[in-house]
Parts: sequence; C-alpha cells; structure tokens
Amino acid sequence: MKLVTYRATVEAEARLGVIAGDLVVDAALLGEAYDEAIPDSMLGLIDSGRPGLAALSALVAKAGAMPPIGTATALVNVTLLAPIPRPRKNVFGIGLNYLDHVAESAAALDTDAALPKQPVIFSKPPTSVIGPNEPIAHNKSITRQLDWEVELGVVIGTTARRVTRSNALNHVFGYTVLIDVSARDCRRAGQWIYSKGQDTFCPMGPCIVTADDIPDPQVLDLWLTLNGVEKQRSNTSHMLFKVDELIADLSQGITLEPGDIIASGTPAGVGAGRTPQEWMWPGDVVVATVDGIGTLRHSIVDATPE
Amino acid sequence: MKLVTYRATVEAEARLGVIAGDLVVDAALLGEAYDEAIPDSMLGLIDSGRPGLAALSALVAKAGAMPPIGTATALVNVTLLAPIPRPRKNVFGIGLNYLDHVAESAAALDTDAALPKQPVIFSKPPTSVIGPNEPIAHNKSITRQLDWEVELGVVIGTTARRVTRSNALNHVFGYTVLIDVSARDCRRAGQWIYSKGQDTFCPMGPCIVTADDIPDPQVLDLWLTLNGVEKQRSNTSHMLFKVDELIADLSQGITLEPGDIIASGTPAGVGAGRTPQEWMWPGDVVVATVDGIGTLRHSIVDATPE
Repeated sequence: MKLVTYRATVEAEARLGVIAGDLVVDAALLGEAYDEAIPDSMLGLIDSGRPGLAALSALVAKAGAMPPIGTATALVNVTLLAPIPRPRKNVFGIGLNYLDHVAESAAALDTDAALPKQPVIFSKPPTSVIGPNEPIAHNKSITRQLDWEVELGVVIGTTARRVTRSNALNHVFGYTVLIDVSARDCRRAGQWIYSKGQDTFCPMGPCIVTADDIPDPQVLDLWLTLNGVEKQRSNTSHMLFKVDELIADLSQGITLEPGDIIASGTPAGVGAGRTPQEWMWPGDVVVATVDGIGTLRHSIVDATPE
Repeated sequence: MKLVTYRATVEAEARLGVIAGDLVVDAALLGEAYDEAIPDSMLGLIDSGRPGLAALSALVAKAGAMPPIGTATALVNVTLLAPIPRPRKNVFGIGLNYLDHVAESAAALDTDAALPKQPVIFSKPPTSVIGPNEPIAHNKSITRQLDWEVELGVVIGTTARRVTRSNALNHVFGYTVLIDVSARDCRRAGQWIYSKGQDTFCPMGPCIVTADDIPDPQVLDLWLTLNGVEKQRSNTSHMLFKVDELIADLSQGITLEPGDIIASGTPAGVGAGRTPQEWMWPGDVVVATVDGIGTLRHSIVDATPE
C-alpha cells in the first residue's frame, strides 16, 4: 500500500489516506463504511501494529476500484503532508553511507577519506520536517552553502532494541523519500545538526510504501534534479551499511520506536562535491525521487530576516 | 516554584507536583480543591503558558504551609520521574561551552583547542531520558569509556524563533539538572549522538525550578562526584555562550518549542580529561548537583547483552 497523510481541503484536519489509482481513500472513513475501527493518522496506524495494518489492507482489497461513497477524494484535489508530519523524536540521519559520496565529501568537506567502520549518525529535529511542495527556507544571513541530498527514508514499525541484522527488517513499517537539506557552512566544530536540522530542512513524502511492497530495500534507484538538471543518480544497492545493518547497529544503543525515521544516506552528486561547488538559491526547484515510492518537489524561497 | 513529575505509588500515573517543604502537592488536585483547572502534567503546564503558571503559583501561595486535605504526599513517599519524562524532540546538547573543558577535550579527545566561535550543538533522543535514581546502563560490548558531565538544563516555555539575545530569557520556563552521559568510544566520524544519545544517557531532574526563581542562570555553582569523590566543580558564569546566547543562536535556524530542553554544556573534570583517564563502571555512583535546583544520584549497572 501507498499511505499518505493528507488534507481534503486547506482547512481540513490531517488524515490518513491510501492511494488507489487517482484517488485518496480515507482510511478511517473506509473503516466506518465497513464497520471496522481504523486509525485516522499515520502514527495511529503504525501504533496499531500488524493487526491494524492487516485490517486496513483487507478493507482496501475489499473496496477494490470502487471505494464506498464518501470515502475517496481525487488525488489532485488534496494536499499531501509529510507522511509523519510530526515525528516523535529527531529523524536519524546516516552520513557517508554511499561509497562515491564518502570520496566527494572527503575531497570537499572535512570528512575522512577512509570508509566509516560503523554508521555515522546525526539527527534532524521534528521541526525540520515539511511535506511535498512546501518551500525550503533559505536564510542567507546564516548560509550561503545550501545543499541537496536525496535519500531513502526508513520508517520503523515496531520497537527495536538490540535486534539482530537478520531480524531487523521485520521492524520496518515502510519506506519514504527524504531530502537531507544541508547548509554546509552551518556545521559547528564538526557537528552536523545545525547544518541539517533547521526548519524546512527535512522534506519527506509523498507517501510511505508499506514494507510488504518493498521486500528488498537495497534495489531501489534514486535520483535528484535541480532546476531540471540531474545532479544525483544511484541505487540503494550502493549503501555501505544496508538498512538492516543500520537498524541493528542503532538499536544496540538507542531504542527505535514505532514511527521513528532513518534517513539512510545520500549518494554522490551533492553541490559541495562539484567543481565548482554549486548551492541552492531562492527560485531554484529541487526534485527528488526514489523509484517505486514517489517524487518530492520543492522550491527554495528567500527567508532571510529583514 | 520547584516543580516535579512524580508517582504517588509505583503503579500510579505520572503527575505534576509542586515541592512545598517536605511535601509534594499535586498540582491538578490543588486546582480541584480551589475549583480551578490546573494541568496534571509538566508539558500540560508549560503549554498553558504564563496564565497557567500564574494560576498554579497563586494557588500554591493561597494554600501556604497547609495544602488542602488529599492534595499532598510526603516527598519521601513518592517516586520522582524526569520532570519531562518524554521530551517532544531530542534534547539539544551544547558541546565545549566551558573554557576549561575546551582545553581538556582538545588534549584528550579529537576536538579543537581553539574556542568555538559559535555554539557546538548535538542531540540526545527522548529515549535517553531517565529520572532521579534510575540506573545508567553500561553495555561493555559497545563502550569501555563511559564518562560523566554535569550540566544546567534549560527548559523552553514559549515558542522561540529567531529571537534576540535580549529577549531570549523570556522564553525560558525553568531550569533543571542534567548529566550528559557520554560513551567516548562511541563517537562516529566525529558525530556525538551515538556516544551521548543511548538509552539512559540523559538523567534529568530532580525538579524544574521556574525561571522567576532563577533570574540569572549564570551565577549557579554546579558539581559532580563519582563514588563520593569530587570530579567537577564550576559555576555557570564560566559558560562561553550564556543561556541567552544559546537560545538566540539556536532559534535563528531551529524553532524552539514549549518543553524543549537545552543541556548547556559541562565544565572541566570529565573522565576523558584526567591522567590517567577514568571511566564509569557498574557499581559506581555518580551524583550531580546544580546549586539551588537539586541533586541527581545514579548507579551504573551492567547492561551488557549475554
């Protein structure tokens, strides 16, 4: 299933939906139509566990191409939000997780040329998350090096504490697309949170594809364009630490909880790694895709204080 | 006021309390006794803003030394939790914020000897927070360099976005004590979240002292002992970036929200900076105090997987 968080009108509350062709079927209303209780939010669904997901999946199958009257809206008429508009903790970011990006980063930034022996972890606060089409804020009083990074996002479904690699993917609820927006000149003594964690620096969406539809997360093409020009293209097969390793490693020290999100790293082609270096500026449009999940499109807007 | 989150019995739900001498007065029950609606949780009180805090403060004054029957419990009979048991985003940590700690860190760890020009920021997930007396987990399969750091914790009261230094302290709800437990050998390519963000690595409490009772947060003694031996002693006057600067700086890029917490950095005397280096091991007891706020006491326990 492709799951979304959406507003049917600008003023409407955010609700959980399921993509069915050109329609968004409202999960909770679908449940009402069949006299079943289905959560009305993504975190609610995640918290309902496998039984909740199975119940929704069964109703979607039952409805087929003809959802009950009043449960569906044309996709073009809704506003999609970040699938999880407000994560419960900072999004986990993984740095230096594609071979070619390790090399470009070592050449252009202050990172080591040697491959990391363990996943490099940072975080992006919930306040950095924005949904599809929301503008990315450019504040030139604090950055003139705003960069792009397309990434596969991993959404945790069940509590993972000290899990093994072989069991790790059983804890995944689904996958999404993320842009790890990075103000390279806002690193602080090597720490990345201020460069990667500012408001609007975590575009996420347009949907979550449930894990049953992506049995292998390591075979996905991903790419990014800036103003229509391709800047990044790779495949998740090139990750140094695979998704199962990331979950196993993180969970040795930090309990992963339902709804937690891992941004699994970016391949080469970022602006910092180019000669000459390139950055995003107001008026630019960045478009990021993970094949089989979807596409994020964001304008950069000037948000410099007066 | 000294505010706590407490359980009256082991099974009881967590509730908001006010310390009155040897008693904990239940905030919501006090409200009921006087026919006023008072929140029953710390985040609820913070969200109620200045009017909510003023209402509680007035009732506490009205009750004086004789709180209404049924509203108070002897402090010795309750369990104190972290004042905010579950922060809404990762706790912001500030690195290298005391002159003498910058020097010891440069000598012993991989940080720069030059003073940082801007605050160095990292984060500790909500899952790392524990309350007074809860054990700190030592997992020797991933660390043999578990270190201590006593810190003043700053609790944000109202949304702060791009605030000026002169207005910054108006956004503070209160202050608490934190230990920024740090597994020095769990740094990853210079990123600190895995060394500082593991489960149990953020002891917090025992209370929040509201900002009206600490008009100047830069005059507070703080110290830490390990097994009764003093390891750190300093005063918040030695911070490189004062609390108002930290709030102003962070809020330029990251919106600070009610209930957000900033761990404002630690002075010299950490284990990594000693000759020979010293670390915490199972059986050790670490005790951290900020004068005028309170004391945290935590045992280190073996939590190595079998």
